[in-house]
Amino acid sequence: RLVDLMEPLHAADIADLLEQINAFDRRRLIELYGVEFDGEILSELDEAIREDVIVVLRPEVLAEAVRELESDDVVDLLEDLEEPQQEAILDALDDADRVVVEQALSFPEESAGRLMQREVVTAPEHWNVGQTIDFLRSAEELPEQFYHVILVDPKHRPTGYVTLGKLMASPRARPLQEIVEDSFRTIPVDQDEGDVAYAFNQYHLISAPVVDADDRLVGVITIDDAMAVLDEEHEEDILRLAGVGEGSLTDRVIDTTRQRFPWLAVNLVTAVLASLVIALFEDVIAGFVALAVLMPIVASMGGNAGTQSLTVAVRAIATKDLTGSNVWRVIRREVLVGLVNGVIFAVVMGLVGIIWFGSPMLGVVIGIAMVVNLVVAGLAGTVIPVALEKIGVDPALASGAFVTTVTDVVGFFAFLGLAAVMLL
Amino acid sequence: RLVDLMEPLHAADIADLLEQINAFDRRRLIELYGVEFDGEILSELDEAIREDVIVVLRPEVLAEAVRELESDDVVDLLEDLEEPQQEAILDALDDADRVVVEQALSFPEESAGRLMQREVVTAPEHWNVGQTIDFLRSAEELPEQFYHVILVDPKHRPTGYVTLGKLMASPRARPLQEIVEDSFRTIPVDQDEGDVAYAFNQYHLISAPVVDADDRLVGVITIDDAMAVLDEEHEEDILRLAGVGEGSLTDRVIDTTRQRFPWLAVNLVTAVLASLVIALFEDVIAGFVALAVLMPIVASMGGNAGTQSLTVAVRAIATKDLTGSNVWRVIRREVLVGLVNGVIFAVVMGLVGIIWFGSPMLGVVIGIAMVVNLVVAGLAGTVIPVALEKIGVDPALASGAFVTTVTDVVGFFAFLGLAAVMLL
Ligand SMILES: [Mg+2]
Ligand SMILES: [Mg+2]
Ligand SMILES: [Mg+2]
Ligand SMILES: [Mg+2]
Ligand SMILES: [Mg+2]
Ligand SMILES: [Mg+2]
Ligand SMILES: [Mg+2]
Ligand SMILES: [Mg+2]
Ligand SMILES: [Mg+2]
Ligand SMILES: [Mg+2]
Ligand SMILES: [Mg+2]
Ligand SMILES: [Mg+2]
Ligand SMILES: [Mg+2]
Repeated sequence: RLVDLMEPLHAADIADLLEQINAFDRRRLIELYGVEFDGEILSELDEAIREDVIVVLRPEVLAEAVRELESDDVVDLLEDLEEPQQEAILDALDDADRVVVEQALSFPEESAGRLMQREVVTAPEHWNVGQTIDFLRSAEELPEQFYHVILVDPKHRPTGYVTLGKLMASPRARPLQEIVEDSFRTIPVDQDEGDVAYAFNQYHLISAPVVDADDRLVGVITIDDAMAVLDEEHEEDILRLAGVGEGSLTDRVIDTTRQRFPWLAVNLVTAVLASLVIALFEDVIAGFVALAVLMPIVASMGGNAGTQSLTVAVRAIATKDLTGSNVWRVIRREVLVGLVNGVIFAVVMGLVGIIWFGSPMLGVVIGIAMVVNLVVAGLAGTVIPVALEKIGVDPALASGAFVTTVTDVVGFFAFLGLAAVMLL
Repeated sequence: RLVDLMEPLHAADIADLLEQINAFDRRRLIELYGVEFDGEILSELDEAIREDVIVVLRPEVLAEAVRELESDDVVDLLEDLEEPQQEAILDALDDADRVVVEQALSFPEESAGRLMQREVVTAPEHWNVGQTIDFLRSAEELPEQFYHVILVDPKHRPTGYVTLGKLMASPRARPLQEIVEDSFRTIPVDQDEGDVAYAFNQYHLISAPVVDADDRLVGVITIDDAMAVLDEEHEEDILRLAGVGEGSLTDRVIDTTRQRFPWLAVNLVTAVLASLVIALFEDVIAGFVALAVLMPIVASMGGNAGTQSLTVAVRAIATKDLTGSNVWRVIRREVLVGLVNGVIFAVVMGLVGIIWFGSPMLGVVIGIAMVVNLVVAGLAGTVIPVALEKIGVDPALASGAFVTTVTDVVGFFAFLGLAAVMLL
């Protein structure tokens, strides 16, 4: 009955369902599911529970499930598994498929080679439409998924491609060369998958031939897989910006704790650093406790402004919109924005300081500190991610810690320092 | 010479170039570019400078540029323009195209109706492969971009689709019904574009028929446009999480200042609220200045832990991985993670407090406050985004302000309140 209920569901939805129920229900459901387990469910499943599911499946069910999958999906499934589970699945494949999968796994992780399918449809570049259609009509087997016929030269180097739609729309005598797409571009087999996804989105590619170091065709990447990578890269950025390591909702408490810990530890060091700055001014605070009440405001506003700037910079670096040719213009703009907002909030906080504590001088101090910190926030929020990118560190990963350290330290130092000079 | 240099560039890259140079160079470059301006450059351009470019183009150049575009790209170009510019472009289109574009604009913003192309290829559902191929071969005009033939019933309701590849691979006598794809699903014309992009990614769609309220076929959405939407939705989330409004690197200082201001204003209110909590304990601080030195640490750790939890929650809500069926499990996990990390950092900070200030009691106070605040951070970081989503507010937009308010207030209150009780 349960299996009947699940019958109309898409594999991706069944995978989501399995992710959302608890481990006990999951095991029961899979056992009920019994002999037929769709391989696509496995490939849609979250890494964290994929291994648990594979353990529960009987070997012959697992073998059958994997045999149905396209080679690129088998690669995606395998690459995150432990050695023994990898072996089990590789053994389940027939020889030809196993060779293909093992070749794909020989390419670096997160490269185009891992993403491509080997099944391609090619035609000699001198063919015409009629020859190509006849070839396709008489082919023994065509790939499940293909949208283009790739033109290759005698050395099997791709030189262009035609869409199936254009092929349908063109007279038989027309040479393929005359109906190739402008969007044609090849992808090096060792290119990073993030750059592959960027190219698909930037150039509206539907599929793209993958070539080896000698420019020879080795496979093809289709947009659906590039879209999945784009989504993963986004997830990575958004989680890294928040100081959360890779992980998923289905991870256990202990794993999640481990993912969250490092950034909190970094933040503790940062916070202690800020405290050391405050400690420099203990006497000043003892003499004027209002300073302790107001000082977090300056630091907090700086931290927020800095986070705004750095997020914009990190995103612009990811979309290749922030480059050497406009970095100075962007820095100048961020600093000016910090200045304008700084002045506005300086006036507001100055007034608050005067009204609340009845001290105009306190108002002036907090106002100046606010301007200084927001300008520094704009500067640090842009320069730090750009510099990290330059030295090869992912700006999404490390910018936050650096920027908030700067705004905390500058915020407390400017506010308490000015207070020491102007109030005592 | 310059135009020669730009000739081999893809429209998307020329658009990026135009975005990255300053306004003066941009104007000069467009004037040099002269009579031929590729319409695709316009559609790739960032909104913020698109209007500036359109103003510089001579009307006949603009008209020519727009006439080359597919109808869905014209819609995407038009929808962000001001009334007079919209009119100018609509007038440049021939009658048939103008009607199509105006119809598309009558659908709500950010809906499937705005995203779809009207050009579709259909076949009666009872046809076989041979009939369909003959029809395609003899068609006067086929769309630039199409990957599927959509089967329709006599009322023009889509009932399935076949890929061009399958059509090529199948014998002429085979009924289309036998080679339809399982992945077939239709998209309601008023569906939100974000949900459309989600469906493409979740179900690996390449194109999907769009239907009206009577289930009749009105257009088709292709994955390249869905991928662009997915990218935009991510940008929106990442910027909203950082409290940055929509905007772009090419915006002027004044526009950017306006985008950044509201969140900073909200943060100021939040920070003042936290200050009011501190003010409750002025006497305690005056009596023991070390409290002023250490108190930002507790608030800062809580803010970071809360941001971790809320970012994971916001992302999981966006990917529909956090739902009613697992929300309690996720909340329990976040609280436990907060507890474990809280205890670890409590011990560390307790020791720091003892060593630095020589007061074991101060160590105990900061330790307890740390545990309390990290547990609250885990709780608030999950419950707040889930609750916002429930009441229809975008959790990416508002969670940050609420969560940091909670962790600031709880952090200062727990630390100073415990100090008041235990130290004095
Ligand atoms: Mg899933
Ligand atoms: Mg992978
Ligand atoms: Mg990657
Ligand atoms: Mg694939
Ligand atoms: Mg796939
Ligand atoms: Mg990245
Ligand atoms: Mg770009
Ligand atoms: Mg662009
Ligand atoms: Mg749009
Ligand atoms: Mg949207
Ligand atoms: Mg389109
Ligand atoms: Mg959204
Ligand atoms: Mg999902």
